Amino acid sequence: MEELKLRVKELENELIKCRQNQNQSAQNMPVYRPKIGQMSAEVSDSNPYSRLMALKRMGVVKDYERIRSFSVAVVGVGGVGSVTAEMLTRCGVGKLLLFDYDRVELANMNRLFFQPHQAGLSKVEAAQHTLRSINPDVTFETHNHNITTLDNFNHFMERISHGGVEEGAPVDLVLSCVDNFEARIAINTACNELGQVWMESGVSENAVSGHIQLIIPGETACFACAPPLVVASNLDERTLKKDGVCAASLPTTMGVVAGLLVQNVLKYLLRFGTVSHYLGYNAMQDFFPSMSMKPNPHCDHAHCRRQQEEHQRREAERPREEEVVVVEEEVVHEENHWGIEVVSEVTEEELNASSRPLPDLPEGITVAYTLPPQDSAEGLTVQETEESLEELMARMQQI
Amino acid sequence: MEELKLRVKELENELIKCRQNQNQSAQNMPVYRPKIGQMSAEVSDSNPYSRLMALKRMGVVKDYERIRSFSVAVVGVGGVGSVTAEMLTRCGVGKLLLFDYDRVELANMNRLFFQPHQAGLSKVEAAQHTLRSINPDVTFETHNHNITTLDNFNHFMERISHGGVEEGAPVDLVLSCVDNFEARIAINTACNELGQVWMESGVSENAVSGHIQLIIPGETACFACAPPLVVASNLDERTLKKDGVCAASLPTTMGVVAGLLVQNVLKYLLRFGTVSHYLGYNAMQDFFPSMSMKPNPHCDHAHCRRQQEEHQRREAERPREEEVVVVEEEVVHEENHWGIEVVSEVTEEELNASSRPLPDLPEGITVAYTLPPQDSAEGLTVQETEESLEELMARMQQI
Repeated sequence: MEELKLRVKELENELIKCRQNQNQSAQNMPVYRPKIGQMSAEVSDSNPYSRLMALKRMGVVKDYERIRSFSVAVVGVGGVGSVTAEMLTRCGVGKLLLFDYDRVELANMNRLFFQPHQAGLSKVEAAQHTLRSINPDVTFETHNHNITTLDNFNHFMERISHGGVEEGAPVDLVLSCVDNFEARIAINTACNELGQVWMESGVSENAVSGHIQLIIPGETACFACAPPLVVASNLDERTLKKDGVCAASLPTTMGVVAGLLVQNVLKYLLRFGTVSHYLGYNAMQDFFPSMSMKPNPHCDHAHCRRQQEEHQRREAERPREEEVVVVEEEVVHEENHWGIEVVSEVTEEELNASSRPLPDLPEGITVAYTLPPQDSAEGLTVQETEESLEELMARMQQI
Repeated sequence: MEELKLRVKELENELIKCRQNQNQSAQNMPVYRPKIGQMSAEVSDSNPYSRLMALKRMGVVKDYERIRSFSVAVVGVGGVGSVTAEMLTRCGVGKLLLFDYDRVELANMNRLFFQPHQAGLSKVEAAQHTLRSINPDVTFETHNHNITTLDNFNHFMERISHGGVEEGAPVDLVLSCVDNFEARIAINTACNELGQVWMESGVSENAVSGHIQLIIPGETACFACAPPLVVASNLDERTLKKDGVCAASLPTTMGVVAGLLVQNVLKYLLRFGTVSHYLGYNAMQDFFPSMSMKPNPHCDHAHCRRQQEEHQRREAERPREEEVVVVEEEVVHEENHWGIEVVSEVTEEELNASSRPLPDLPEGITVAYTLPPQDSAEGLTVQETEESLEELMARMQQI
């Protein structure tokens, strides 16, 4: 009897201690703020939208609330993609679709967003958890898979076509924040087929340059129209080309590229300022080259050529308004056949040695791949193989 | 007896449930990674420094490890300052000193870094908690006070002079991430007196432009040498000048400015690339004006003039090496007297109406304040008052 009474006392004390601990833990847990039905411009400390709605009073944006009507797909939730998703979440975008198949690692901690306690979690799940606690008004949809496999690619196409704010409508924009050529080609293929506007982003392997690019199928050059453009960093590239070297990265360069990307997204969706077609960032010199590029009529992508025809038909049918003057440079090469070398940048010797005419590029922008000279034994020359970029790429993956 | 037995059973069950909950909570709590004694270039998923140390192999930075020998003071831990502190933390800087007197509010959630569950906490405490869990190798020192009051200013001076990685040595750099003129003048005063190199940053009230500026006392223009330079946003400024309007802000612009600032910090501390003296960001046009400005020999600040003399003496004594060609534009006005109007930008009419000669500025950069025409009844004309910028500012605060 006494023993039992003692045991009850003991247990009660244990339970009190446990509950105290639990309360303390709860205080350190993220407290989700309640959802907000309508964006308000009210100037108060507790209104997370006051500084955004102020863009209207400042004469920058006409109707900021429209941000809630847009759905954006972010492919790749790494150094650029995670910050991109966070910026869009804080801006109060309607819906975000996140695609990635990677896990968070401590080796990612030199970039913004992920934290050491998330190591081991899938990037899309960890990102969703953080983003939802930052802004519960955004709808999130996550896909923990690699979009380049056949099944996943079809699923990706399906979600782009139907993942709008109102299920069934297409998304408004696709953002490529991936770190490899294969995934970019997959996004390009899907967007060409669907006529889906997208923006591409990239950061160099030496971490000191990057770029963003707007691709409107049929209207601006697609990713297969020309060799991918990158920003020259004016560094000795020989170091870069060594095999098995781990790429460098910096939170600064990736933060700047994500910022320029999402700024371009806001300008495109909310219709203010000038939307950039191609904007580069050379961190060594703080130089920001920009340009515009028309699609290549001989593009390898049949869907790109179809989109070009449709665009031209639409343009011809459109009632002529004022002429909009845009500096555009057409790609000047007869055929779109490129021998591919996997290097992040091209040296001057290689540019000179290349046998093919290259696009006329502004200072500071160069191509990521060149065609080796005709007599070169190295590289794959397309005259012999007649393979497409994707087939070449697939072969290269096997090498 | 039976009752007591039942009670024991009941309590045991409660305790098990409570402990299960506690375990679950523990799993969601930040797990601090252990400290790392020496930065390693080893390519492994668990090495948070692998992608930074790769900058050496890439030929960008000679000795990245030196980052640990630097102490940086960040004044203002808001939209720009918090991201600045996070980038430096992830880069593995030796020590960070954070100064701010503000609390986190839900109204800050449209910018990166702070989260809703931190609302109500002091910014420096909340920032330190997050940053320490991101990188426990960094030493943090926080000051929850306003540096512009007399006592706090003296304490600020003391910490800049002695808050190095080795206590007693000065910090290596001061970063101004504040949002008001008064705090900038305080930082300028302290750094002129101490000969402390600092960088200034700013974002416009309409959220679509910003800038960074490097100030080496005696060598480049200080904050009192000329009216502060801002980036023209080519928007109608009339909206901006209305009284009592809450400033707009965007995570994009602030992220880009923080990224450009910390990139400049890395280039300055680790000696790579070209360190920018003044770099602007016009988000409407994606335009990035840059310039350099020599100090004004007639600067109001006695300590600035002293630093100029000391710099000239050092230059004269220095053995002549190669001539370094830097595009520098001297401020061309006889006296440094400015009537101050609190506006974020200056219209063309105001520039034309200004009676004083203005610095010859490159396209896209303009002054934040102009001197009204001599016959103007508005504004404070210095000829009558002979007040310094600080005195004028103090008077304006009272108006």
